[in-house]
Amino acid sequence: MLNIKSARVITSSPGRNFVTLKIETEDGTYGVGDATLNGRELAVASYLEDHIVPCLLGRDAHQIEDIWQYLYKGAYWRRGPVTMSAIAAVDMALWDIKAKVAGLPLYQLLGGACRKGNLVYAHANGESIAETIAEAKKYIAQGYRAVRLQCGVPGLGSTYGVSKDKTRYEPADADLPSENIWSTEKYLRVVPELFAAAREELGWDIHLLHDAHHRMSPIEAARLAKDLEPYRLFWLEDAVPAENQANFRLIRQHSTTPLAVGEVFNSIWDCKQLIEEQLIDYIRATVVHAGGITHLRRIANLAALYNVRTGCHGATDLSPVTMAAALHFGLSIPNFGIQEYMHHTDETNAVFPHSYTFSDGYLHPGEKSGLGVDIDEEAAKDFPYQRAFLPVNRLEDGGMHDW
Amino acid sequence: MLNIKSARVITSSPGRNFVTLKIETEDGTYGVGDATLNGRELAVASYLEDHIVPCLLGRDAHQIEDIWQYLYKGAYWRRGPVTMSAIAAVDMALWDIKAKVAGLPLYQLLGGACRKGNLVYAHANGESIAETIAEAKKYIAQGYRAVRLQCGVPGLGSTYGVSKDKTRYEPADADLPSENIWSTEKYLRVVPELFAAAREELGWDIHLLHDAHHRMSPIEAARLAKDLEPYRLFWLEDAVPAENQANFRLIRQHSTTPLAVGEVFNSIWDCKQLIEEQLIDYIRATVVHAGGITHLRRIANLAALYNVRTGCHGATDLSPVTMAAALHFGLSIPNFGIQEYMHHTDETNAVFPHSYTFSDGYLHPGEKSGLGVDIDEEAAKDFPYQRAFLPVNRLEDGGMHDW
Amino acid sequence: MLNIKSARVITSSPGRNFVTLKIETEDGTYGVGDATLNGRELAVASYLEDHIVPCLLGRDAHQIEDIWQYLYKGAYWRRGPVTMSAIAAVDMALWDIKAKVAGLPLYQLLGGACRKGNLVYAHANGESIAETIAEAKKYIAQGYRAVRLQCGVPGLGSTYGVSKDKTRYEPADADLPSENIWSTEKYLRVVPELFAAAREELGWDIHLLHDAHHRMSPIEAARLAKDLEPYRLFWLEDAVPAENQANFRLIRQHSTTPLAVGEVFNSIWDCKQLIEEQLIDYIRATVVHAGGITHLRRIANLAALYNVRTGCHGATDLSPVTMAAALHFGLSIPNFGIQEYMHHTDETNAVFPHSYTFSDGYLHPGEKSGLGVDIDEEAAKDFPYQRAFLPVNRLEDGGMHDW
Amino acid sequence: MLNIKSARVITSSPGRNFVTLKIETEDGTYGVGDATLNGRELAVASYLEDHIVPCLLGRDAHQIEDIWQYLYKGAYWRRGPVTMSAIAAVDMALWDIKAKVAGLPLYQLLGGACRKGNLVYAHANGESIAETIAEAKKYIAQGYRAVRLQCGVPGLGSTYGVSKDKTRYEPADADLPSENIWSTEKYLRVVPELFAAAREELGWDIHLLHDAHHRMSPIEAARLAKDLEPYRLFWLEDAVPAENQANFRLIRQHSTTPLAVGEVFNSIWDCKQLIEEQLIDYIRATVVHAGGITHLRRIANLAALYNVRTGCHGATDLSPVTMAAALHFGLSIPNFGIQEYMHHTDETNAVFPHSYTFSDGYLHPGEKSGLGVDIDEEAAKDFPYQRAFLPVNRLEDGGMHDW
Repeated sequence: MLNIKSARVITSSPGRNFVTLKIETEDGTYGVGDATLNGRELAVASYLEDHIVPCLLGRDAHQIEDIWQYLYKGAYWRRGPVTMSAIAAVDMALWDIKAKVAGLPLYQLLGGACRKGNLVYAHANGESIAETIAEAKKYIAQGYRAVRLQCGVPGLGSTYGVSKDKTRYEPADADLPSENIWSTEKYLRVVPELFAAAREELGWDIHLLHDAHHRMSPIEAARLAKDLEPYRLFWLEDAVPAENQANFRLIRQHSTTPLAVGEVFNSIWDCKQLIEEQLIDYIRATVVHAGGITHLRRIANLAALYNVRTGCHGATDLSPVTMAAALHFGLSIPNFGIQEYMHHTDETNAVFPHSYTFSDGYLHPGEKSGLGVDIDEEAAKDFPYQRAFLPVNRLEDGGMHDW
Repeated sequence: MLNIKSARVITSSPGRNFVTLKIETEDGTYGVGDATLNGRELAVASYLEDHIVPCLLGRDAHQIEDIWQYLYKGAYWRRGPVTMSAIAAVDMALWDIKAKVAGLPLYQLLGGACRKGNLVYAHANGESIAETIAEAKKYIAQGYRAVRLQCGVPGLGSTYGVSKDKTRYEPADADLPSENIWSTEKYLRVVPELFAAAREELGWDIHLLHDAHHRMSPIEAARLAKDLEPYRLFWLEDAVPAENQANFRLIRQHSTTPLAVGEVFNSIWDCKQLIEEQLIDYIRATVVHAGGITHLRRIANLAALYNVRTGCHGATDLSPVTMAAALHFGLSIPNFGIQEYMHHTDETNAVFPHSYTFSDGYLHPGEKSGLGVDIDEEAAKDFPYQRAFLPVNRLEDGGMHDW
Repeated sequence: MLNIKSARVITSSPGRNFVTLKIETEDGTYGVGDATLNGRELAVASYLEDHIVPCLLGRDAHQIEDIWQYLYKGAYWRRGPVTMSAIAAVDMALWDIKAKVAGLPLYQLLGGACRKGNLVYAHANGESIAETIAEAKKYIAQGYRAVRLQCGVPGLGSTYGVSKDKTRYEPADADLPSENIWSTEKYLRVVPELFAAAREELGWDIHLLHDAHHRMSPIEAARLAKDLEPYRLFWLEDAVPAENQANFRLIRQHSTTPLAVGEVFNSIWDCKQLIEEQLIDYIRATVVHAGGITHLRRIANLAALYNVRTGCHGATDLSPVTMAAALHFGLSIPNFGIQEYMHHTDETNAVFPHSYTFSDGYLHPGEKSGLGVDIDEEAAKDFPYQRAFLPVNRLEDGGMHDW
Repeated sequence: MLNIKSARVITSSPGRNFVTLKIETEDGTYGVGDATLNGRELAVASYLEDHIVPCLLGRDAHQIEDIWQYLYKGAYWRRGPVTMSAIAAVDMALWDIKAKVAGLPLYQLLGGACRKGNLVYAHANGESIAETIAEAKKYIAQGYRAVRLQCGVPGLGSTYGVSKDKTRYEPADADLPSENIWSTEKYLRVVPELFAAAREELGWDIHLLHDAHHRMSPIEAARLAKDLEPYRLFWLEDAVPAENQANFRLIRQHSTTPLAVGEVFNSIWDCKQLIEEQLIDYIRATVVHAGGITHLRRIANLAALYNVRTGCHGATDLSPVTMAAALHFGLSIPNFGIQEYMHHTDETNAVFPHSYTFSDGYLHPGEKSGLGVDIDEEAAKDFPYQRAFLPVNRLEDGGMHDW
């Protein structure tokens, strides 16, 4: 019995907003969990502070599964991004505590390492095709073995994944949601050109990925997936909105381009059909938004049955706490595929000191007990929460479109 | 163009907790929306206050569909109880405003009245079978045409739906979640006896309903549904947990007892398969938890194609604002089935003056412009938020069970 | 209660035949509805006059949904073009009245504007490829962003969509049905050439559409759809007859060319499978032939679930009343795609004064209360009904073919 | 070549309304066809007179299939009760002519007799169970081998199929639609009692049928079909509304009671799924409402593949012309099941002299050339059309229900 003595929610903005949960036990051991939901941070903070923390005090920190079920079933209102991010934070913190108690890095408790590191992919963004390829070359020079390519769309003022600041990409860029204009027709013209040029210049020994950000209809996605076949993508990501999982059947029917989706998923129910019908090849659900290690392990287990591999979301909206959790998790499962990786700012890294390291295209969680990541609460105080919203996306006729 | 001038979240506890959104336009018209999520109220309040209200100011209150899509798609993180309850509150308030501008009760804008009133069902709860039937008789004497029967389970200390106070039932009864003990085996023995006795004493001219509160496995539910066939229930509610919608296939295979589910659903995706495979007969999704009138209308439309009728949740955790919205909605759709109805406390009614009335087994929304419900903000101030949790449910071996 | 005092059917031929229903209430408010069924006008007029109007008198004009159900279910004989066009006329007129009572343009009652206007497409028809492209250029110069291209088929005397008078195309051109000769083989050769030339001359920034008018077999359609892939059509319309909705599976299997169908559909049952299996991308059902706004909204709602957008039929056989209704409807739904638009004659416009306007490729319904369209009954009297039939289509061996 | 010289629509009301088409050829041969659509007669009359007759003149009466395709495909707007009843009238009249030209009763042209006569069933209606059984006994005494039983529902003022006048049942009973009140719950209680009593008193050597008139939901129908299993019905008719053909799956899953449906169907598309999934046992589509002999033969052909037999609608709303056509048709097909039969009034029989005869439970079309039925146009003049509507059906809460 290892009683939980306190649980505290820390909201800070070292470079961008993060919500962090810190759980401390009677013997002084503590663990950290990430609860950041980009643009909706304070709702999760309230969910934790007002509705979960009071229920945690006095519970046995060892009973991770019981507490998970307690929070999931006991809430009555299940699933959804706010709920599952809050539960995830608790789950991460408890696994951190348990591994510290065991004196082992977390991946050892999850079954031990299956591989030497987690293959990661970087983001190469540019306004033009040439600029994008130039960015990709920088990453390749740093040792990356996989790069996501996004370029500006001629005729559109702004495009998802493309920013002025090449090395940092943060879509939650304003105090109120920016409104962008989108045209799938224009987009569909430029992407095959981008990858044709990329293969020409970067060759075939680098994994290339692309993110469509749920903006196509199924038939448009089918067309793009078919058009991209010659360039042998590692994956085409978020081709269509996925509430209707059967959307992917049409894409699948027309193309052998590997498909990935799931950064917006919050539970196994959001991807069960996608996996069971083998409509995707990579599942991108994350530790933080999909209920923590306890639940993501269930998703990966199901995926393994169907030869689906993981490819967890890993943009900067996930704090180093989630990144650490993802790396321990990825190292331990048989069907790991790839891990997204964007550098956090120096401010973020200062507030969240961590043991994971990049080398030769791989990230490794390190060998510290627990998650190997901490929060410097004093440093965090210098970075109060700043309201920031993700942008919205409208079609040229003004109709709301998927962002 | 009818600019939104202000939007305010009011959290109060007149008898129980409610979260209410009040949107005011430049010309002084205002509308109210309910955002109450039992036991998770403050998270929704934060979602509204911190993440939605800033985006509403200056928008055209007439653009209900656009604002719905803006909040749903623009958030990026879709679905789930917190998100959809927050969107629902905005949607209700905007429909209230639009109907006031039109000078019509809301049901007129939704297509006009399809029936003379909304058939409702009451809750008869008792510790014993006899007591439950005695309670039912009281409701029948008041004019009710449909009654839900729940009775204590011999050998269990407490049972869902059964409380000391017969006329008020509020499961969110404590500052921390109560822990109850459950045994499906014991429960399965008493329910058929309850309904055998009820038909004996109450006759066949009254609709009888029962709520199983997601506590059975599919095969247990199939057995109970079959056992209850002789008693011709109006419905058996929440037979099994419904994240896996295919759970209902097994029940359906074995019984013709009508099935209802959905008070925990937040979007059409939670029930699409249930409806399309005709696995249920009544969909219980509510205005407040399923994205407002705009989204519930989509659910009801789909249901109508498949001969599924509505049977909206209507316990006291829904404020009079949701009740009014449900009554306007129910009056206007062709496939209305029944509406749950529990009396609010006098305090609740005082804070939320409303025009809907009960008569002869039916509720009618009344003829005031808009929703016909208001919030007395001054009165609300006397009832500050009080933390309250729904209970949790454990099996006799201590394992967490579905509540 | 707003009693219906009179309902009158007005049949006139200002340029072409139109059947219009005018419903007046006790307080003097009136609404108009279109009931035009090209070549079968008088049957719908009789259906209204003889079988519906007597049942409307004295009913509450506000009860739109109830009246819809009354006419649909009460007739016993459901569905079909005559029945559903008659019901549609009643529905349009009642929505017109309700919006006038509310003092709002109809789109506001339907949820408000979702976009700045309805994207429309024009018809460019020519005997040769060159002539067709020349016509398209004229439309583009007028601001159109989307053009349908139809050209003559070498070796065939006449072709659907191609007439002497370039600016007006009316297939119902004779007192008895014209008989045309058809050869799919000849047709299949010219269409890819047309679009190859069009992309060469018109570029890629204009949406191009094509209508096959249900004349191909599924495998022929699959071949054409595949042949057209390089030219990136906005859609291929009416590829095959659609009574057997599964016909589209074969096309879908072979091509990513977007598909549209539905101008002949009368109810959701005619397209339910097409939508649920995502066999099409645009549903072309119209307000007038598919049961009015009340029913078309059900179709659009179902379509939205499956990422199918609307692309309503809008040739001149639909009177300005339907065009106005379509524009209010299109403005209000989240999954609007495109609207067909052909100019009515000056005579038509004189008899049906309307508030909708074209600008920059979009149509907007205007801001008048109700539908914003009226019928000048005096002017209509100058244009008595003139019998006119749609043509029929035979194969070269004389066999009847689909028109 | 046998040119059509004239085609005339005769609307008369000898006992009830009938619309009859009479086609005459250059050589003086003529044929008759029924176009009666109960409560919507004049719309079909207009469809024929205004839109079909002009196209028939001068055509070769021998080209039945070509004319069918001409009317079906050439109209552009296909299917539906008005259109298909009009086409059916032409088809019947042309088959009448062809058989007269051949000097043979029609059944000979359809392949010759397969059986000695068409088994028919009578209607036994009563307000009480006892009365219904007494009526059935009268029919049995007359030689009927199959009887449909309908009895009053305690607590409801009127019930479908039950009238004061026992021998004549005509639901189109008023100048405006009567409004009846319906309660499925009450109905479900009485039907099993009716059949229990019937088997008790009538024994097991008589075929018993029941018509539910589309009033149940699928689960209610499943329950009734299961409840009726012990009484071995010949069929349970029109259990549920059938626009969604999959509705029958649920009934099928729970019961082996044979199912029949289809009197409202207008084309093979309305029952293709029902037949191909073997969801029914008898298809009730009629000659008059389902496109004539030419089209009904296609339906019966498909049905035979799936062991589905015919059971054509045959209430008095079908004129003796349709009855004659049905009898020739039934005699000639391998998968005939049963034919509904209600006596027409003497007035009807006087206006439509016919050769078909009842004997020993069977109807035989007789041996006259052609259909063996005529219209006495002089006699018809004494019975001008009288407006009459079918009733509508409302639930106890006032909501419109299926009639």
